[in-house]
Amino acid sequence: MEDNGGGEVAWRFGAANPSLEAASALSIRALVHRLYGCVDRNDPRPLAPLGHGDPSPFACFRAAAAAEEAVAAAATSGKYNSYPTAAGLTEACSAVAAYLSRYLPYELSTGDIVLTAGCNHAIEIMMAVLAMPGANVLLPRPGYPMYEARAALGGLEFRHYNLLPDKGWEVDIEGVEALADENTVAIVMVNPNNPCGSVYSYEHLTKIAETARKLGIMVICDEIYEHCTFGSKPFVPMGVFGEIAPVVTLGGISKRWMVPGWRLGWIAMTDPKGILRKKKGAIPQIIANTDDVFFTNAMNTMREAAEICYQRLKCMECITCPHKPEGSMFVMVELDISYFNGIDDDIDFCTKLAKEECVVICPGSGLGMKNWLRVTFAVDPPLLEDGMERLKSFCLRHAKPTRNHATS
Amino acid sequence: MEDNGGGEVAWRFGAANPSLEAASALSIRALVHRLYGCVDRNDPRPLAPLGHGDPSPFACFRAAAAAEEAVAAAATSGKYNSYPTAAGLTEACSAVAAYLSRYLPYELSTGDIVLTAGCNHAIEIMMAVLAMPGANVLLPRPGYPMYEARAALGGLEFRHYNLLPDKGWEVDIEGVEALADENTVAIVMVNPNNPCGSVYSYEHLTKIAETARKLGIMVICDEIYEHCTFGSKPFVPMGVFGEIAPVVTLGGISKRWMVPGWRLGWIAMTDPKGILRKKKGAIPQIIANTDDVFFTNAMNTMREAAEICYQRLKCMECITCPHKPEGSMFVMVELDISYFNGIDDDIDFCTKLAKEECVVICPGSGLGMKNWLRVTFAVDPPLLEDGMERLKSFCLRHAKPTRNHATS
Repeated sequence: MEDNGGGEVAWRFGAANPSLEAASALSIRALVHRLYGCVDRNDPRPLAPLGHGDPSPFACFRAAAAAEEAVAAAATSGKYNSYPTAAGLTEACSAVAAYLSRYLPYELSTGDIVLTAGCNHAIEIMMAVLAMPGANVLLPRPGYPMYEARAALGGLEFRHYNLLPDKGWEVDIEGVEALADENTVAIVMVNPNNPCGSVYSYEHLTKIAETARKLGIMVICDEIYEHCTFGSKPFVPMGVFGEIAPVVTLGGISKRWMVPGWRLGWIAMTDPKGILRKKKGAIPQIIANTDDVFFTNAMNTMREAAEICYQRLKCMECITCPHKPEGSMFVMVELDISYFNGIDDDIDFCTKLAKEECVVICPGSGLGMKNWLRVTFAVDPPLLEDGMERLKSFCLRHAKPTRNHATS
Repeated sequence: MEDNGGGEVAWRFGAANPSLEAASALSIRALVHRLYGCVDRNDPRPLAPLGHGDPSPFACFRAAAAAEEAVAAAATSGKYNSYPTAAGLTEACSAVAAYLSRYLPYELSTGDIVLTAGCNHAIEIMMAVLAMPGANVLLPRPGYPMYEARAALGGLEFRHYNLLPDKGWEVDIEGVEALADENTVAIVMVNPNNPCGSVYSYEHLTKIAETARKLGIMVICDEIYEHCTFGSKPFVPMGVFGEIAPVVTLGGISKRWMVPGWRLGWIAMTDPKGILRKKKGAIPQIIANTDDVFFTNAMNTMREAAEICYQRLKCMECITCPHKPEGSMFVMVELDISYFNGIDDDIDFCTKLAKEECVVICPGSGLGMKNWLRVTFAVDPPLLEDGMERLKSFCLRHAKPTRNHATS
């Protein structure tokens, strides 16, 4: 070795893969993480985490005991220490197939299910599978940036269609038709919707499926918030329309079972006509033994929290909420930046809010919606009330002095 | 909708991403899975699974009770249901840092560790990070095809250097120097070695580090089989040489703790000079509470199994074993195809062996070594003996009749 010790070595590796860095930048997690860094650690008030959807730390949203016990029993059984098959343990795939089939007009089989390490992993797999040279995929705006990140990383072109705030955040069907071309392979949709908190009707879902059929594309339906509804519209799985167009459903136990840290997701081929090629632990117990009472209680708490959030936001002069949340764990609200003095945009707003009020909210820019905010209400209701109060004080304090705030 | 019902729809999506299919083909799992399909389900003999390294189903290799209990306690505590941070829970990263530091001449910090969903996930991340346009990486032959698959998928060029069977499967240092150019960013090495069962000496590891420094490249050391040694050479972590060249160590609990199904791996920056940019549950308990007795017993059983495997293979005329296994869970042996009547190559050999003898062994072709075999001995010793006996009968039955087998 010529230069051991002090010699200067010309290391040939440089920065990381630039497309990976670009993909990482498209991350709600990164955006929200930076806001946590802005919070004053000496602030005596509890941090109000309204930036990401994770109710699990709050006692009112604690996972079902049956689910926790199922994992503990699996861990100590010694039966699940080995490598599973690539698509997941057969018993687990089969339990997921039976669970999803409850809500479908046909039966899914074990081979229709691929288990993943959380729903983000399901997104990662689907974007990689679709990344044929020249292909493009239609993504919603506002959306969930993991789709953009994973498409970009795989060289898959993506095009944004709009969700319409004045129509309950429905898909802009005409926009979708105008956007698609002969290289479009799929449309991604999210129902119940993150970040909009909307739930699509049977009629609207039919229209989406028919549009996909007309365009000759598959539907990828992100149903990670399946059954997380607390308004008047019931959750209808997109797989119900699998005879119209092939549907790939992405889901997992993170949200309904309130265990995002357990990292269990799935890809389900809800494709009764077999147009897509078929692909081939504790999961059966978790799914079988979680009482409906758990889900009902969780959704009652979520309804209460959504109501608090919506009512409080509605009274703020600088905020417009086009649609009352009825599903998922989020609401999208528009910020009137002209209301403020010295606040440039949504990112500036959220940064200052974190610093001054110990409240973290996700700026809409992270979802392709500048000067909007995505607020989660999946937090303990008293803390949510407190956070809303602090948000209000912040807005009033930063309002332009010329305004009349008597009514706000 | 023009064509609801019977009409023919021109679906625009076709087959999956071809580079993904190419990457999947580079899979030991796929190769071995096909062999399982060849096994006669009516064969009364127990299947001898000598194709992949998973000792966990055997009682003699059962995971430590302390580890199983730690997972059960974490699951029922309600404290680990939430999203962890991207790099893993801080306590878990910190436990891994402390564990690895025990064997290093310096201390790793929490920020040096990134937790992953198994070591394959660590490989996936590293290959993606290194995939700069034009860059290339040096991979061992024989090797572990996940590296090739993930490099191919990310568009990272890979070049193969040889491991030398006559030198205890050491790295061909001259070959490495000849292979590298100004676009080479890293060399991947595996120690203890899968598939060769070899363990590198302190001197050889020093040479590898010095070569990396000379070439200006980083070392990626796959240490998933760390401490799985039962010969005369001790395991020396590559991080020991981190002052010579920056080392990224890939590891996990799958092999040493015998829990591959738990999917916990890590990436450790063993880079005391800070040349690489620093990146930032039940894990602490699993690592703290697993008694040394567990590791010692497991390695004693592994030593016994390796001995059985080696002694049996050595007596077979058609098989050459250049190096007695001293680490990992594998041995590489060369097949003399000219010995057989009507067997074309290693894949044909393994296919017929699975069909006729209910014994699954991984063909060397899957690792870039045509007409070699990778045999695992990480199975219950009586079943291993039985499998070896069946392998021997198979070889004798298929030998050319002209040969004299009196001595085999």
